[in-house]
Amino acid sequence: MRSFAGRDILSLKDFERNEFMHVFDTARKLEPIARSRERSDLLQNKILLPAFYQPSTRTRLAHETAMLRLGGHVHGFSDAKNTRAGDFYQESIKDTFKMLEYYGDVIVMRHFQQGAPAEAAKWSSVPILNAGDGWGEHPTQVLTDLYTILKEKGRLDGLNILAVGDMRMRTMHSLMYAATQFDIEVSVVSPPELSLTEEFIKEITARGNKFQVYDSVDDCLDKADVIYMEPVVQADYTAGREEKPEEYGTTPKEYVINLKLLNEKAKSDAIVLHSLPRMDELSTDVDHSKYARYWEEAFNGVVMRMSLLALVLGAME
Amino acid sequence: MRSFAGRDILSLKDFERNEFMHVFDTARKLEPIARSRERSDLLQNKILLPAFYQPSTRTRLAHETAMLRLGGHVHGFSDAKNTRAGDFYQESIKDTFKMLEYYGDVIVMRHFQQGAPAEAAKWSSVPILNAGDGWGEHPTQVLTDLYTILKEKGRLDGLNILAVGDMRMRTMHSLMYAATQFDIEVSVVSPPELSLTEEFIKEITARGNKFQVYDSVDDCLDKADVIYMEPVVQADYTAGREEKPEEYGTTPKEYVINLKLLNEKAKSDAIVLHSLPRMDELSTDVDHSKYARYWEEAFNGVVMRMSLLALVLGAME
Amino acid sequence: MRSFAGRDILSLKDFERNEFMHVFDTARKLEPIARSRERSDLLQNKILLPAFYQPSTRTRLAHETAMLRLGGHVHGFSDAKNTRAGDFYQESIKDTFKMLEYYGDVIVMRHFQQGAPAEAAKWSSVPILNAGDGWGEHPTQVLTDLYTILKEKGRLDGLNILAVGDMRMRTMHSLMYAATQFDIEVSVVSPPELSLTEEFIKEITARGNKFQVYDSVDDCLDKADVIYMEPVVQADYTAGREEKPEEYGTTPKEYVINLKLLNEKAKSDAIVLHSLPRMDELSTDVDHSKYARYWEEAFNGVVMRMSLLALVLGAME
Repeated sequence: MRSFAGRDILSLKDFERNEFMHVFDTARKLEPIARSRERSDLLQNKILLPAFYQPSTRTRLAHETAMLRLGGHVHGFSDAKNTRAGDFYQESIKDTFKMLEYYGDVIVMRHFQQGAPAEAAKWSSVPILNAGDGWGEHPTQVLTDLYTILKEKGRLDGLNILAVGDMRMRTMHSLMYAATQFDIEVSVVSPPELSLTEEFIKEITARGNKFQVYDSVDDCLDKADVIYMEPVVQADYTAGREEKPEEYGTTPKEYVINLKLLNEKAKSDAIVLHSLPRMDELSTDVDHSKYARYWEEAFNGVVMRMSLLALVLGAME
Repeated sequence: MRSFAGRDILSLKDFERNEFMHVFDTARKLEPIARSRERSDLLQNKILLPAFYQPSTRTRLAHETAMLRLGGHVHGFSDAKNTRAGDFYQESIKDTFKMLEYYGDVIVMRHFQQGAPAEAAKWSSVPILNAGDGWGEHPTQVLTDLYTILKEKGRLDGLNILAVGDMRMRTMHSLMYAATQFDIEVSVVSPPELSLTEEFIKEITARGNKFQVYDSVDDCLDKADVIYMEPVVQADYTAGREEKPEEYGTTPKEYVINLKLLNEKAKSDAIVLHSLPRMDELSTDVDHSKYARYWEEAFNGVVMRMSLLALVLGAME
Repeated sequence: MRSFAGRDILSLKDFERNEFMHVFDTARKLEPIARSRERSDLLQNKILLPAFYQPSTRTRLAHETAMLRLGGHVHGFSDAKNTRAGDFYQESIKDTFKMLEYYGDVIVMRHFQQGAPAEAAKWSSVPILNAGDGWGEHPTQVLTDLYTILKEKGRLDGLNILAVGDMRMRTMHSLMYAATQFDIEVSVVSPPELSLTEEFIKEITARGNKFQVYDSVDDCLDKADVIYMEPVVQADYTAGREEKPEEYGTTPKEYVINLKLLNEKAKSDAIVLHSLPRMDELSTDVDHSKYARYWEEAFNGVVMRMSLLALVLGAME
């Protein structure tokens, strides 16, 4: 297995099965620190630099909490408008990251353009963690999701995951790549105009992803071990945050999960994941049911980032 | 007395006299740390999470300074626009705070809607400190104010407080609740359209608040031990920060305090408090006079938040 | 030499030669900490408060990194819009800084108005570092630049510095003041409408600055030891960040540096500095040439702020 020390986490495309498992094992070792709200000294001299060009709550704060719980420090920006990248100068990724490497020991970056973190990684000598790049990927989120599933189910192999929502979303891309490293069957449900792109289908099929497409959650809910959700009604992810649709409707029932449906159709031990925020695709009556695991995801998000930070900074082997 | 450990500080409505005094005693013990600009290790593993949906300078930074001086750490947001609560998704208080509890050990929250911190407290297992909720309350500010008065006067009982400004303001509400636990007489001066609401008058009268209404500071300045000020000319507190009045006038002289008036009418040991920012209701010629205590308030604001953080996090009994 | 402890760093106008050298010596002592990405405990109880009223990447993060590497802590604001200074109240410098002094042990401030940090220093008892004030000065940047030059050339005396770009910029002002303390000859190249003001020329001439004006970099590049660049095409520095020119052209070739020109005309050991961000005045083909030192400037920016923080906080003599 390649060492994680100094490595960028840009995509799950090239993550191998034993690398997934190593990240999960490391998370499991560090989880008690997050659980007990302690402060370790594992990363006590290290600085995490969040470079967020798009809004975030969970992703940014989970990385920062992970760093703080491991004894490190945090500074950076959550609004590029207050930097030279966001003002008149529109400073290039190159000029920005050739310089940011001096101001942190690891950088977590969200950007509205697909590929921006990969471009940043070319210029920065410190590791870049991709916290979401346009329609590209969201690897640290999907690592969190898989860790959550593994903790709940005890395994990843042999599971059926129902992925419902906009399949062009970055989490969906990372999920589909990850599925190729396990014996995971993915059922895909989305509005036709929000389906997997042909190019992406070609790529993941070549990589061995076994997915099946359905028209409605109704058609495949019964075999799902995990229901993995993203909004259908949403902002344009490729735009800056200002450009949002003036009007939007409600989610068609084909893509909605609620408690009644789960009780009628789902396996009794099925779990629902959602990286949040949600619109109306996930009914709040699920929140306190036996199916909901999305609050645990928020906690696991800290644990997973502890694992990734400890690994890329070389504090754990 | 109820323990403070794990408690939310949402309102002064239910604060009892001995609870006020315990918070003040704790503040007095911690004050030397702030005075000497040291760093204690009392809260060395703790994370404060500021969740500010409205602008703030003093309140946010005073809480953060308190946490840093007590050895803790700070991360969060000062602009909800950069979070999923402020962007297209308008994430609910529930979804936001069910998750934020994993990213901090105590949350300080300012919101434009009255009751928002109480709603957040329903969903967060970690303590919520209300840093101002719309027209609701501002308990930590008024605790700071009372601590300042106590230090200056040696007592709270038997004092006359002249409250001048918009009586619908959140500080005024917290002040009127607090006054019911002490032998404090409040003189109230405000423009008629900015007076205490009938409903609020009914409530605090039932709670035993002895207040008297005057038309002008001129009519009651002579008996005031403390002059407690808020702006009359101001932004709309219930609106998001964007919605500000295009035009506004100057403060009518009935609600203005200046040095000449103080010298002519006020008790020689009267003190002026103002939580700031100010418009023109408090003349700058008061700033360096014997009456001004609003700079001390800014310092005491750190001390009071040290007390509250140490108490709700269970680091002091 | 006057002690640096407790001192504001507002301008290089009054900096004396031995003070420059002392700041550089201190930087040299602290540089290994930045180089090895360690954390010292020199400023372990100290809080740096960034108060930024204008966008910044490098300057803010370099100060913050310096503080973190020296063991201190950081909190403040990078967007005055979220404070009472930036909202409806437009709180005065006096009211803001009489209060901020309680929330930090040293304040680094950027403001769109010339003289604002000097005004803040009147009211704050803790040191103020000027991080750029409108068209005024940018002393910590130019100290970084001179430190970079000194490291590269081993000396400052006897050097020719070609200053090209908008000569009304704050860095240019600080540079011209600094040059008077050394045997430095400055060649000045700028569009006529962006030249040094008559008043400023009178002042620096009286102070002994020996500068010469040229129409084009072509005319004086051959004798330059250092090429010091600022944009010609740029935003209006005196305006708030919102007010930016709708249209702007490209930089005329008289003010452009590229690799071909350097190879043809420059001394073989000439170095190019640019505080960045850039527009098109500095061609990216210079970036990885032997001339470029602007990435090192970004690193040296941390070292220089370590020196200044340690000195004004009295942690080093």
